[in-house]
Amino acid sequence: MATSRFFNMPPFASTWNKSKVSLQRVNITSNAIQKTVRFSVINCSLKINHTQPALNDEIRVPSVIKEMENEEITSPSVAGRLVKGGPVFQQNVSVRSFEIDSEYKMSTKAIMNYLQEASLNYAKKLGLTIDTRFGITPGMRKMDLVWVFRGMHIEVDRYPCWGEVVQILHWTCASGRTGVRFDWTINDINTGETLVRASCLAVMMNKNTRKTCKLPEEVKDEIKAYLREDVEPIVEAFKYSCPQTEAMDHIKTGLTPGWNDLDVNYHVNNAKYLDWILESTPDSIRDRHELWKMNFEYRKECLKDDVIQSLSRVVPSNEKNRDIEVEHVLRLESGHQVLRARTVWRTYSHSCRGINSMKIIF
Amino acid sequence: MATSRFFNMPPFASTWNKSKVSLQRVNITSNAIQKTVRFSVINCSLKINHTQPALNDEIRVPSVIKEMENEEITSPSVAGRLVKGGPVFQQNVSVRSFEIDSEYKMSTKAIMNYLQEASLNYAKKLGLTIDTRFGITPGMRKMDLVWVFRGMHIEVDRYPCWGEVVQILHWTCASGRTGVRFDWTINDINTGETLVRASCLAVMMNKNTRKTCKLPEEVKDEIKAYLREDVEPIVEAFKYSCPQTEAMDHIKTGLTPGWNDLDVNYHVNNAKYLDWILESTPDSIRDRHELWKMNFEYRKECLKDDVIQSLSRVVPSNEKNRDIEVEHVLRLESGHQVLRARTVWRTYSHSCRGINSMKIIF
Repeated sequence: MATSRFFNMPPFASTWNKSKVSLQRVNITSNAIQKTVRFSVINCSLKINHTQPALNDEIRVPSVIKEMENEEITSPSVAGRLVKGGPVFQQNVSVRSFEIDSEYKMSTKAIMNYLQEASLNYAKKLGLTIDTRFGITPGMRKMDLVWVFRGMHIEVDRYPCWGEVVQILHWTCASGRTGVRFDWTINDINTGETLVRASCLAVMMNKNTRKTCKLPEEVKDEIKAYLREDVEPIVEAFKYSCPQTEAMDHIKTGLTPGWNDLDVNYHVNNAKYLDWILESTPDSIRDRHELWKMNFEYRKECLKDDVIQSLSRVVPSNEKNRDIEVEHVLRLESGHQVLRARTVWRTYSHSCRGINSMKIIF
Repeated sequence: MATSRFFNMPPFASTWNKSKVSLQRVNITSNAIQKTVRFSVINCSLKINHTQPALNDEIRVPSVIKEMENEEITSPSVAGRLVKGGPVFQQNVSVRSFEIDSEYKMSTKAIMNYLQEASLNYAKKLGLTIDTRFGITPGMRKMDLVWVFRGMHIEVDRYPCWGEVVQILHWTCASGRTGVRFDWTINDINTGETLVRASCLAVMMNKNTRKTCKLPEEVKDEIKAYLREDVEPIVEAFKYSCPQTEAMDHIKTGLTPGWNDLDVNYHVNNAKYLDWILESTPDSIRDRHELWKMNFEYRKECLKDDVIQSLSRVVPSNEKNRDIEVEHVLRLESGHQVLRARTVWRTYSHSCRGINSMKIIF
């Protein structure tokens, strides 16, 4: 089996399937700048299943990435570049002072932001999108479609430090007839070590009706040259079970989107949900542990005037395991769920305070 | 008079003076990770005065910047570089998808974040700081001092668009015996046009007592080689008067720092305050205008468990002037003021939606 210095492979993989969301419009108000659309969820089922047996890295990583080992990977591709003509996108980013936590480590929210950034820049670099808009192809524009994230899995082996330059690699895969899977790794630019792995299912949503739909053939034709069929998700989903909302004993209510939390689709950006689930995570966990693994299942848009309740519950575990699992739900005051999530926390692996000589490439 | 393609000079300048803050410790609680310190303001006076007569650009801009015109300014200095050995710092940044508003324009908060980033990278590049810490010199560490912002003036001529690469220039000046003035411009990398001007007074704060103090001689000696004496602030302060808190008729209460809003000094980062003043700014202004000029006067730290009230009042104006002035106060529930601010809004100057070909340098 070929090895790669870019990837340390986890032993299991996951697949997305049986994904179906139907949203019914309830109320629309608009003004000159913003259109606010409210929905109720009619039917929402997203299953995340484990697959067996263990997979090797051959089916997790586009082969073109291995060929990159002979290339200059420290080239200053800040806005990104297409590797080998397009099957993989590479972007190098520098961790900013406003993207770190109190230990000078890149925040998980900043990581999520850069995953989105890489996807949008990939589409832009491929010339698939109209103008500078968020990943909108001509076919999508004709049908008033936008991309939305349905689910995201992230695993962080090591959080990058302030000033560190890291390399993001990103590729896309077909995911049944439903949507497109996005995969990313974030790598140490000096050692090639993989620091972060993430995998996400993205689907189409009509921006007027706010209903999600299958990937239309016209759009699939536009992007199919860059949809891989031959690789499995880069990150495994850890075991998932329905959250026991009634048992959730850590609750924060009255959370509202700030004016800066809405994105160009006029809804709350996916990374903001992380802020909210942390609001109901017990201090004792947030303060003494770090986020290691995350599963986010986006169930409903959150719009400008929504008021969110954040509920969390620490999953009981046996004493041998020092990692802590927490299950989370974000819901509207009406009870409709906006997000289900599960997080795994480990004791602090490292701090970036007092690191003397961070090698800066640029 | 020499002209520069980097600067369009405003006709007036401002100075900072009579700056005095004294904070008294009230209560301290701590846990393994975070230390929470509360203070009450004993005495706080910051005057921002206009100076006359009109200044020319010779005394606003370090002369070394003019010499840059013959250099290659599009070099990929993502983590920044020292111009001519140190009197000016230059950093190029690319506007990210998560740093824009619904019109695809860089948010004011993102601009504020990058100003801080440039200052910290400047200190790091000069080798003045210990480890990777936030601008901490050896002398500051000995005396347990950190930098805090006292006041900030920003003027935005044009907001950069998503994907646009802009050039930040930054320099520092002595400001009496009190502190250090930071100046920045953000420039169009293709035309040299100045898009943003900002000027800020930074002072020392003891991280244990949380009292501000004059710049100690030991610290001044460490940094004096890079403190200019010969340039005025790059941005003028617009006329300032005490806000009429009792007349403020737009109020939002119950604002609390999120877990991600605290920085490495365990207090709310200066840019977060902008989010909060926008919370009480009327929708009719936020939705149909854009922020043009801002004065922020930071009066008190905001800590982890503080609850903030945001108050705003539209300043009455004559009909001829279509720009809108708003005065703002952020205060604790106890009544202590955390921030005074004044903002000037103009009708939208441009949108970045639908821009076809953004030239990307990297």
